[in-house]
Amino acid sequence: MNNTILIAGRVITTIKTHCRVKRGFNITSDVGVRKISFSSCRNMKFVQFVYNEKPNDIRVGYLEGDKVVDINKADSSLPSNLLDILKNGDIEKVKKLKSSNPPSVPLPSIKLAAPIHGNDKVLCIGLNYKDHCEEQKLTPPEVPMIFSKFSSTIIGQKDAVRLRTDVTDKVDWEVELTVVIGKKASNVKAANAFDYIMGYTVAQDISARDWQKGTRNGGQFLLGKSMDTFCPIGPCITTSDEIGDPQNLDIKCSVNGVLKQSSNTNQLVHKIPNVIERLSSVMTLLPGDIILTGTPGGVGMYRSPPEYLKPGDVIQSEIQNIGVLETRVEKF
Amino acid sequence: MNNTILIAGRVITTIKTHCRVKRGFNITSDVGVRKISFSSCRNMKFVQFVYNEKPNDIRVGYLEGDKVVDINKADSSLPSNLLDILKNGDIEKVKKLKSSNPPSVPLPSIKLAAPIHGNDKVLCIGLNYKDHCEEQKLTPPEVPMIFSKFSSTIIGQKDAVRLRTDVTDKVDWEVELTVVIGKKASNVKAANAFDYIMGYTVAQDISARDWQKGTRNGGQFLLGKSMDTFCPIGPCITTSDEIGDPQNLDIKCSVNGVLKQSSNTNQLVHKIPNVIERLSSVMTLLPGDIILTGTPGGVGMYRSPPEYLKPGDVIQSEIQNIGVLETRVEKF
Repeated sequence: MNNTILIAGRVITTIKTHCRVKRGFNITSDVGVRKISFSSCRNMKFVQFVYNEKPNDIRVGYLEGDKVVDINKADSSLPSNLLDILKNGDIEKVKKLKSSNPPSVPLPSIKLAAPIHGNDKVLCIGLNYKDHCEEQKLTPPEVPMIFSKFSSTIIGQKDAVRLRTDVTDKVDWEVELTVVIGKKASNVKAANAFDYIMGYTVAQDISARDWQKGTRNGGQFLLGKSMDTFCPIGPCITTSDEIGDPQNLDIKCSVNGVLKQSSNTNQLVHKIPNVIERLSSVMTLLPGDIILTGTPGGVGMYRSPPEYLKPGDVIQSEIQNIGVLETRVEKF
Repeated sequence: MNNTILIAGRVITTIKTHCRVKRGFNITSDVGVRKISFSSCRNMKFVQFVYNEKPNDIRVGYLEGDKVVDINKADSSLPSNLLDILKNGDIEKVKKLKSSNPPSVPLPSIKLAAPIHGNDKVLCIGLNYKDHCEEQKLTPPEVPMIFSKFSSTIIGQKDAVRLRTDVTDKVDWEVELTVVIGKKASNVKAANAFDYIMGYTVAQDISARDWQKGTRNGGQFLLGKSMDTFCPIGPCITTSDEIGDPQNLDIKCSVNGVLKQSSNTNQLVHKIPNVIERLSSVMTLLPGDIILTGTPGGVGMYRSPPEYLKPGDVIQSEIQNIGVLETRVEKF
């Protein structure tokens, strides 16, 4: 069938697809057209997980309805974690595996973990939604403003965000669309940037505002952004060929069921391909690196009065075509 | 024998040692006395290296005169890289190995690599020598100012610092005493901080000033500090029990043989134990994490006229009781 869909305000005519979900179309962004071939259709959401009886042994798999396929168990020549699958360039092998319908395990027998871990870089973009700039009375920066978290801050679905209540009482939420780099990227032009993206996940860029800003660290964001557990990601990674237009996805965050942030990734100030061009002009992006693309308005600090996370709070962050990432806040 | 030595302006009476080099004494700093037991004497400088014929296979060893002992080759139950030795808590096993005088290989048959790699954190302290603050007309900050590099920026002895001449022409040198964390550290008090340090190495905190400062990244140091190859470390890690007083070491940097920086680590504004207390109050330090403790005055940017690195330059950075780290600058 032929579909006509609206992406970023333009009418795009899609081409025939053989996939179950709507994809195999061209995606137009400010920096060019991305063509997705039919052969790359995978209908695949990557997860990492542990079996309930082996809580320390992280495994990589993909969702198959309400079940999970343990990739390494189905084919022992494939790695047992996503980072090594990406480093080895084994995504094609996983695709072939999927077409052989290997055995799967029901979701209740496992616990989801962060969908990637052990990666080199957690890059974050500041001030990348207009309304988030406006709530701070700031003009969006002319170039992406980049900071980082340490990879060890990554946690997963239903994990606990730990509040070090002895050192901070101003910890805030931020939902962010997160890019997962699939292969080494150095000096990549924006027009080719999507080729380097393996998929997308949801992140909560947890932030201790009293350490991020002001005099506690001389204006450098690092300490406020890199406390233990401050980078929840998940619940899965939706692959590039399944996400649709990553720059036209609804994005939301609620705390204890109360909606706090609600926007669409079409509001990103600096678009994903431009960010990858800029980053890869100064550093090599590696397989498994993640880029948190910024948060929309509605964070706690700029509410009137300001609101901050407290022990017992539940944070739910949802992005269209990916899922809901849920964490809870615990005193530490 | 009993020795009397002067550390940080105080007379300290050392106690008898059974080690060949002077150690086994108490070290007094502003935050207390560190006692080093005799049993921890190792006279050991850790290195990582590759055999000339296997340039991609990084191995861990220790120096034995002008030879290197390949730890994993001498005892296959020990890991082949330093990070895993630290994660496993295998330092004691290496000590026992050393006392058995295992076979060694001559230095010309190997090439030194960075003494640690694959670690989670490269933490850096800004503005931590008074004269470096003065050359910028800044007051030393009341608390340590922390930023970071990505672990993938680490390179080793005689490696090339790559200049991306298309994006920066203001790349600068900085020599720094670098702490290597030996075991997990969370909420550590300054008085106990030395217990968590495995050893010390030399780093060059290479910095693209036009990206670190000004409007290119909104004042966040990350991009200017984390270009590929911007964290040379080496040539070895001198263990804590052999370094003497880490806060009383001569520190120097020359470019093409011309001395640019010359100071002593007794000029550190924020002392090592205080830095570890502060960092570990907000994040867990992990085995293998490194902390670059700041650079003395004499960097290129604040010379008159300013001087920056150019292709072909050779940077030599020396710290007493560790050695000389040498890199060369290459156009990229």
